[in-house]
Amino acid sequence: MSESTQPEPKNQIWKLTLAYDGTEFRGWQVQPGEVTVQGALQAALGRVTGETPLPQGSGRTDTGVHALAQVASFALRASIPSGNLQRALNRTLPASIRVLSAETMPGTFHARHSTISKTYEYRILLGKSGRGKICSPFLARYVYSCPWPLDFQALESSARCFLGEHDFLSFAATEPDLSKRNTEEEDDLQLPCKEGVQLAVRTIYSSTWGHRLIEDGDLLVYQIRGNGFLHRMVRNLVGTMVEVGRGRLKPEDVSAIFAARSRSAAGPTAPARGLFLHSVEYE
Amino acid sequence: MSESTQPEPKNQIWKLTLAYDGTEFRGWQVQPGEVTVQGALQAALGRVTGETPLPQGSGRTDTGVHALAQVASFALRASIPSGNLQRALNRTLPASIRVLSAETMPGTFHARHSTISKTYEYRILLGKSGRGKICSPFLARYVYSCPWPLDFQALESSARCFLGEHDFLSFAATEPDLSKRNTEEEDDLQLPCKEGVQLAVRTIYSSTWGHRLIEDGDLLVYQIRGNGFLHRMVRNLVGTMVEVGRGRLKPEDVSAIFAARSRSAAGPTAPARGLFLHSVEYE
Repeated sequence: MSESTQPEPKNQIWKLTLAYDGTEFRGWQVQPGEVTVQGALQAALGRVTGETPLPQGSGRTDTGVHALAQVASFALRASIPSGNLQRALNRTLPASIRVLSAETMPGTFHARHSTISKTYEYRILLGKSGRGKICSPFLARYVYSCPWPLDFQALESSARCFLGEHDFLSFAATEPDLSKRNTEEEDDLQLPCKEGVQLAVRTIYSSTWGHRLIEDGDLLVYQIRGNGFLHRMVRNLVGTMVEVGRGRLKPEDVSAIFAARSRSAAGPTAPARGLFLHSVEYE
Repeated sequence: MSESTQPEPKNQIWKLTLAYDGTEFRGWQVQPGEVTVQGALQAALGRVTGETPLPQGSGRTDTGVHALAQVASFALRASIPSGNLQRALNRTLPASIRVLSAETMPGTFHARHSTISKTYEYRILLGKSGRGKICSPFLARYVYSCPWPLDFQALESSARCFLGEHDFLSFAATEPDLSKRNTEEEDDLQLPCKEGVQLAVRTIYSSTWGHRLIEDGDLLVYQIRGNGFLHRMVRNLVGTMVEVGRGRLKPEDVSAIFAARSRSAAGPTAPARGLFLHSVEYE
């Protein structure tokens, strides 16, 4: 959030922290003919600086997935005070993308490669339209309105099963379409193009459920921090925990799902609209 | 919110209470070739009941204006338990429109003609992108992100000037386009087609500013209750109070603005996205 009026030295690496409402974007990554966050940011940089570096994100987010603090990095030749760059980008970008901070970094910084861990958040509104709580139209883009009652203790028990180092292959999207594999990976990992146990191994540092009371309802909020996430992994973990929460699976079933190393062993994919990239941690 | 499983008697008048995110609608009223709330509701009624009465709203809301509790009425020949009608409509309508309640009413009920008063709410986020607080992308559709600091006491003083019975002609939209006059009136009043002091006289029962702390920021919230509102009246009142709050007008100037009976005497029209139809009061 530092706001300097001094011009920055030339050929600087920039780090932007971004919030975005993913509803109307075809995900983070530039794709021909599609409106994407990366594409909108590149276009805004072009209009503001005359340079069009492709901003590298900490990871790709899918269509409809939101970010509270995505990180992007790129190099600029022009000298621009950081406060000016932030303001000019916010004037140029649509209101659905905001630059929360802009700062210059050492030349070795890369939004994806320098990441230590990332935190995702998933928001569920309990009770569905007509049967109990009605999902407010002002919340509908930002939560999964779950039609079933969920046992909070069962959710918590299953969330604990994901802690530590595991092979998460059962929770990775299976993409039969090779072109999709390349464009929709959450991480830079080319999975499952290269096979082998190691590729799907990730370490989860925290995995917790909580309640949050907001204006339009009482949310169940899941937060997970890990050293990396496979494509759709968080949504598949949440979809599986919802199965546990509604009693169709038991927390003890999670170890068998890990062992199966098959997407079909886990629960369904929870909707994109409930998922937020919460934060990205660097050294 | 009563949920009966008994079929209702035939030829009933229905009262629906609706919440909607107005961002993607061309206002309430049906217009050829446009997506409107009234049109979406009529289409959903057709799919659910096979009947397509035109639902009458308590008033028209403009493009981008939201509703927390709009009221609509219509007659149906079919017998439907109210809980079933509500659930079926919520399954059929887009997530941006929710039926909060459905109930049958005496045959004399009409969502607009039976109104005693209506309450509007206007939400302002202080501090603009880059200069102070950044407007969250999750809030941008639902607030006016005001770039200037506002004096709260000056806002309160000017709000009190609107209390009671006044000729609000200076705060009514001037529509040179006759077709727009008919389609965009907030009330049923045909103003200014018929001239004369009486047509712009309205009584305001309450007019207050407050603070509301929400997840994404600290909002200034204006609420106004009155027996009727001219087209764009609330947005013009707010635009004028913002001029007072930033020191470009004084609260004492309001009486001269009333006396001028000219739109040009008042402040600018505040953006639609901050305005919510809060509630509609009946006997």
